[in-house]
Amino acid sequence: MADIVTLPDAGLAHPVSVERARGLHRIRLSSPPTNALSMAMIDALMEALAEAAKDPDCRVVVIAAAGRVFSAGHDLKEMTAHRADEDAGRAFFEATMRKCADLMQAIVRHPVPVIAEVAGLATAAGCQLVASCDLAIASEEAAFCTPGVNIGLFCSTPMVALSRNMSPKHAMEMLLTGETIDARSARDFGLVNRVVPPEYLATVVDKYADTIASKSALTVKTGKEAFYRQAEMGLADAYDYAAGVMVENMLAKDAGEGIAAFLGKRKPVWTGQ
Amino acid sequence: MADIVTLPDAGLAHPVSVERARGLHRIRLSSPPTNALSMAMIDALMEALAEAAKDPDCRVVVIAAAGRVFSAGHDLKEMTAHRADEDAGRAFFEATMRKCADLMQAIVRHPVPVIAEVAGLATAAGCQLVASCDLAIASEEAAFCTPGVNIGLFCSTPMVALSRNMSPKHAMEMLLTGETIDARSARDFGLVNRVVPPEYLATVVDKYADTIASKSALTVKTGKEAFYRQAEMGLADAYDYAAGVMVENMLAKDAGEGIAAFLGKRKPVWTGQ
Amino acid sequence: MADIVTLPDAGLAHPVSVERARGLHRIRLSSPPTNALSMAMIDALMEALAEAAKDPDCRVVVIAAAGRVFSAGHDLKEMTAHRADEDAGRAFFEATMRKCADLMQAIVRHPVPVIAEVAGLATAAGCQLVASCDLAIASEEAAFCTPGVNIGLFCSTPMVALSRNMSPKHAMEMLLTGETIDARSARDFGLVNRVVPPEYLATVVDKYADTIASKSALTVKTGKEAFYRQAEMGLADAYDYAAGVMVENMLAKDAGEGIAAFLGKRKPVWTGQ
Repeated sequence: MADIVTLPDAGLAHPVSVERARGLHRIRLSSPPTNALSMAMIDALMEALAEAAKDPDCRVVVIAAAGRVFSAGHDLKEMTAHRADEDAGRAFFEATMRKCADLMQAIVRHPVPVIAEVAGLATAAGCQLVASCDLAIASEEAAFCTPGVNIGLFCSTPMVALSRNMSPKHAMEMLLTGETIDARSARDFGLVNRVVPPEYLATVVDKYADTIASKSALTVKTGKEAFYRQAEMGLADAYDYAAGVMVENMLAKDAGEGIAAFLGKRKPVWTGQ
Repeated sequence: MADIVTLPDAGLAHPVSVERARGLHRIRLSSPPTNALSMAMIDALMEALAEAAKDPDCRVVVIAAAGRVFSAGHDLKEMTAHRADEDAGRAFFEATMRKCADLMQAIVRHPVPVIAEVAGLATAAGCQLVASCDLAIASEEAAFCTPGVNIGLFCSTPMVALSRNMSPKHAMEMLLTGETIDARSARDFGLVNRVVPPEYLATVVDKYADTIASKSALTVKTGKEAFYRQAEMGLADAYDYAAGVMVENMLAKDAGEGIAAFLGKRKPVWTGQ
Repeated sequence: MADIVTLPDAGLAHPVSVERARGLHRIRLSSPPTNALSMAMIDALMEALAEAAKDPDCRVVVIAAAGRVFSAGHDLKEMTAHRADEDAGRAFFEATMRKCADLMQAIVRHPVPVIAEVAGLATAAGCQLVASCDLAIASEEAAFCTPGVNIGLFCSTPMVALSRNMSPKHAMEMLLTGETIDARSARDFGLVNRVVPPEYLATVVDKYADTIASKSALTVKTGKEAFYRQAEMGLADAYDYAAGVMVENMLAKDAGEGIAAFLGKRKPVWTGQ
């Protein structure tokens, strides 16, 4: 049974709820109908991610959303209000963009895998959130777009994540036209791993989470970190680095246990060391 | 109605024609049957691209071609003739390769999106031309290959663009075997965005162009430039850079107008500022 | 007819056999049922690759395998035995990882194209071997996985090759879940070029090899080297480099012959110069 909790300072107005069960933190954007990435929402997501990183029992994070929209991206009303600031909003926009980029990189650098559970529409920074996760499972009813170009504000930070998930022509089409792609196209392009009927979405995500949670926490943490670091290196440097990672991994207790269990045809008992 | 014009010095022999309509410059390779990228053709394309960049009304460039071949790549007869030069052609080959690489990069750096409209066969540097465009729409009758390996001249400059559009194994297969892929494979590989019946090719391209032309010119220019710059950075640098781009974009008039129009449920009026 | 030979020091226990025919070296992992990449296997593969590189008649290398498993990756028994070493195996693990990374890079740097012929299961470093080849043809019965995470040893070196063949979400799914993908998924992801019925596997590989062997050896060598070098550069540097490669290629005898043959509608006669 899921142990449903909310963050310490949460009330009805808190934009994020967290359900904890079986090593899984399901962080749910809970500000329908748009689940906009307001400053409060970004702060709450960062806090929930930090809580998950500190929880020694947390093995997988899922980012889900309440309602029919996964996230519509930045909070345009909040941003527009700051145009009345003395600096025409520059300081607020800078803080927003910086914080949002920090959020996306906090997912990439998070010690446990982060899975996007996408039931509905993910747009702009909401689409970037999906692209930034390690894995993404989408309902057949999910859809994706980067429509900033329609309102004069090109999705330049979303493009950073998007263009690292799909071929440039597909990314450019989304960015230049602002048009929406369905879940199957998102899967064909590389943005999501799997598309499932809406009624099975949470079940399939839980299955992925359980699979990952059954591995050694140390091994998964080691591997995820290495994945993104080597991705930015040339081939020779990547091999030098990854070979070093594997040697340390091999000398850890969990590799000894895992290999001994495999050779002995028994189930491994992980200690995370 | 299209305002069909040709470049100032054009005659029947001019290798490129330009049709201007509704913010669109359709630059047409007009040297059938091969539309080879001779020095004259490259110069004419560069000139037409420069004209489009200077035209404040130009919002999209389309590169199309007359006849059944989009482009067969470099002009082998022209190159062969220069083998009789004192230096066995070295200076001419260097000038050709430099100019051709400049052409491809002029597309990438062009201030407006460039769409390839591919009705027929695109080979070697002709295939590179498609790969270098921001978007590519192909007829079902289009086909693509990099057959330099068949004539002892590996498609090494085409590979630069090709390998940035598709996975390395697909690119290597095209480059090593020299064999032709059909339009659907090109779409599956990531080289083209969409495949349409030949009779609808121009219509679909126009629809893409009209969609893009309806956006703020400043926003599109900002976004296209940022796309290719951030693509060459590591993740953290890309976010630093893109966040800065978004702040400036947000402070521009067109973003204010676009967001106000969106919140006010009205159509935006762009000024390109 | 194939001239089936084995390496000089080969006996029944030799882990690799080599068949030479029509410019093709088919290097076969011959240590079923697992074809594990033991130190002896890696050494034998390196030696066979070096032999192929020295053979002026060798135009293509195929890496195939005896039995139903292509390769199960590292030899876990061998590695486990070295835990009894004074340093708990560190020196041996370092040597193994270094040598294995050298093997993979020897494929990438090999002067002739290397094709993986995958009849069965390729796991961990066995999957990396496929990913490291220039081309890969798989039987419908082939399957692929990076299951290190199941035994506490994340496939960190395999990820280097894997993540350069497919989108990050697909690679992450394989690495984090350790689950097996079938040949068609491997093709859709970009890991293999083609999937064929098992009874046609060798025939199709031979057809690819014959096609490549019919080209100029110098041209193929030039192009393969340039492919991987330019892939690590930014666009402008890649064009500078590739343009220089094409000029030298153009001035080589085989390009002169190939272009003259093409223009003269005759078959070229390559000299490899």
